[in-house]
Amino acid sequence: MPKAKTTSRLDALAAELMGAGRYLHSQGAVPATSGNLSARIDGQRVAITRSGCHKGFLEPGDIMQVDLSGQSLDGKKPSAETLLHTTLYARYPGLGSVLHSHSPAAVLASRLFKDAVILEDAELLKALPGITTHETRVALPIFANTQDIAELADEVEGYLTANDEAGTSCYGYIIAGHGLYTWGESVKEALRHIEALEFLLNIENRLYGVKQP
Amino acid sequence: MPKAKTTSRLDALAAELMGAGRYLHSQGAVPATSGNLSARIDGQRVAITRSGCHKGFLEPGDIMQVDLSGQSLDGKKPSAETLLHTTLYARYPGLGSVLHSHSPAAVLASRLFKDAVILEDAELLKALPGITTHETRVALPIFANTQDIAELADEVEGYLTANDEAGTSCYGYIIAGHGLYTWGESVKEALRHIEALEFLLNIENRLYGVKQP
Amino acid sequence: MPKAKTTSRLDALAAELMGAGRYLHSQGAVPATSGNLSARIDGQRVAITRSGCHKGFLEPGDIMQVDLSGQSLDGKKPSAETLLHTTLYARYPGLGSVLHSHSPAAVLASRLFKDAVILEDAELLKALPGITTHETRVALPIFANTQDIAELADEVEGYLTANDEAGTSCYGYIIAGHGLYTWGESVKEALRHIEALEFLLNIENRLYGVKQP
Amino acid sequence: MPKAKTTSRLDALAAELMGAGRYLHSQGAVPATSGNLSARIDGQRVAITRSGCHKGFLEPGDIMQVDLSGQSLDGKKPSAETLLHTTLYARYPGLGSVLHSHSPAAVLASRLFKDAVILEDAELLKALPGITTHETRVALPIFANTQDIAELADEVEGYLTANDEAGTSCYGYIIAGHGLYTWGESVKEALRHIEALEFLLNIENRLYGVKQP
Repeated sequence: MPKAKTTSRLDALAAELMGAGRYLHSQGAVPATSGNLSARIDGQRVAITRSGCHKGFLEPGDIMQVDLSGQSLDGKKPSAETLLHTTLYARYPGLGSVLHSHSPAAVLASRLFKDAVILEDAELLKALPGITTHETRVALPIFANTQDIAELADEVEGYLTANDEAGTSCYGYIIAGHGLYTWGESVKEALRHIEALEFLLNIENRLYGVKQP
Repeated sequence: MPKAKTTSRLDALAAELMGAGRYLHSQGAVPATSGNLSARIDGQRVAITRSGCHKGFLEPGDIMQVDLSGQSLDGKKPSAETLLHTTLYARYPGLGSVLHSHSPAAVLASRLFKDAVILEDAELLKALPGITTHETRVALPIFANTQDIAELADEVEGYLTANDEAGTSCYGYIIAGHGLYTWGESVKEALRHIEALEFLLNIENRLYGVKQP
Repeated sequence: MPKAKTTSRLDALAAELMGAGRYLHSQGAVPATSGNLSARIDGQRVAITRSGCHKGFLEPGDIMQVDLSGQSLDGKKPSAETLLHTTLYARYPGLGSVLHSHSPAAVLASRLFKDAVILEDAELLKALPGITTHETRVALPIFANTQDIAELADEVEGYLTANDEAGTSCYGYIIAGHGLYTWGESVKEALRHIEALEFLLNIENRLYGVKQP
Repeated sequence: MPKAKTTSRLDALAAELMGAGRYLHSQGAVPATSGNLSARIDGQRVAITRSGCHKGFLEPGDIMQVDLSGQSLDGKKPSAETLLHTTLYARYPGLGSVLHSHSPAAVLASRLFKDAVILEDAELLKALPGITTHETRVALPIFANTQDIAELADEVEGYLTANDEAGTSCYGYIIAGHGLYTWGESVKEALRHIEALEFLLNIENRLYGVKQP
């Protein structure tokens, strides 16, 4: 009975996204109704938080289903930013989860730094897939904020394509005054990436303007 | 039986205000006996925290009833600041809740900035009603602190009237060295506004004196 | 049966001190085995945390009884700082509790400021007894740290005597690199004073070196 | 039955390490899969967190057994940093626990300070064994980060040997961009040292660049 199987997978993903939302709220990273959380159901469908709810107090009914072009599959209203999630799932078949936090660290970094935050020489970079030494350099690009999400999705796509062609990995990006997008094979892995990137952003913010030894 | 109905509405509002107090205390935003929390019962009455209690450990008996001029309706002693709540309810018929936090962010902002804190170019402004783009500008005016609450209520009224006539929305204000007042259609909405405004105040405080790119 | 009555009062005070310790630990204010917490049992006896235990995980056996000269009444070993508590109880008959936190805010303030931290023009000062307006000025004196507690107790006594003679109230003091002492009529009131003073110290620390408007 | 005894000691230590991990995670000190926690089973064996797990959500199966040269005794895969733990146990027979946190305070300190962080004139130094006055001076050396753990273990050994010969105590060290190592007679004591050192690092970080009175 494939239907039952899908339902139970959706239930399990919804439970994971609800837990992720509670954790992010405890960190002050999804204030008011900000942030979006999603996980892949299968090749065609994504579970994602619906428009307008508080991510720290998610209920099962706050998780909706969309296709890879961001269209609702269950009549619920998707968030305007759904497309930023689904284009990532369409691009990377192995991707299992996309998490967008609206953390103080990410918003502050976008006000302190210009085009990107450069993370380097940090052991915690090894929390990111494929990185086995601190002697590496990861850029978190900063995109200007816009209400034209289709345009922003295109801009992100262009960046990722150039990046992939150059053989560089991208682990996330910042939208100025708006927050962080990161992703992983599973909700658990994406949360781990958030923990690592937020930690590193906090350090870089704190060091802003400090003359180092 | 209107009496029973009123009682149960009061009970429900008291429960919401108690929850709001616990949340604000967990954020350090109602230290000692600071802060005041209220919600509208109906066109003539408001439920509000009584004088002198700790807002992080509210009990049902700590919520009292006042009329729109701030007079006690149940024999309990109202806080001196009750008038700052009731004038808002009298002014805006759709208003359901007023929350006054005494947060580090608001008190610090009032020591760093002069007449107002300007919030702009921030996605989280969309958490405020009627705002649909980050490309907006919200002023949180800063009023001098005083123990003459009637005078302060008048000053706030004057500001709001000028603001309404200019067609500008006002989402809250700061009393210097004292904290933030904000409001909404319901306790839930007012809490959301607090979350958004506190987040934005923290960013502005952190950026104070920083030369930005 | 006076004995039973005393025991139950001691039990009740122990429960309050254990709760105060858990709260202070949640705020990072009693790291490792730092801090001391006490409450008056009666005119001759004080309940106080014994030497060497962690104040965030107090058990009933960690609360001991001492007389007003700081001598153990139950065979347990008192902390070296017991005298700083008992001289306050001996001095002020109405005093019900003395709390010593080792908070980041107090330790940092003692490194930033010289002889005292001046708190003024802050609404939260009204949380302190006898203060009814923000237009006041409270000094938290900073004493040099020493391992000679008798000498320090004398120095505090001297300060308080001069203060009392001048008709000024003193609500607490800081030992440099060591933390805050404050007190009240009850554990609850002393905790409220800690909440207020820590809040205000955090603001002053944050403003250190900032040119204000 | 020595086997049962060993198992129950391992179970008890595993429970302590799991609790330490949850506490450190609540402090943001083991983000993603960072940090390592260990405790001595007996003269030949150490219980230590296995490679790759999140230290904030440890389960009994995440604790493995290694010998004093860092080799697995139970088929589980040890973390690359196991050697930094076992060389300490081999060196100091009385050592019961080694805790490595990846805290913001330690990572930031390693970016602000050059060869060591000097802690002095702080009452909390008395939380460290053998220190009975604040009038002391403790250096936390900062070692460059490397993926060659054997080399780093040698460097630490060299430092400790020189230190022991000079009659100076060493209570922990920092690996640049990577975190803090500290230790104690038991998990409880090592945690107390972490609490004290993290507190003191936060103060030193905050004072960086401040001209003091």
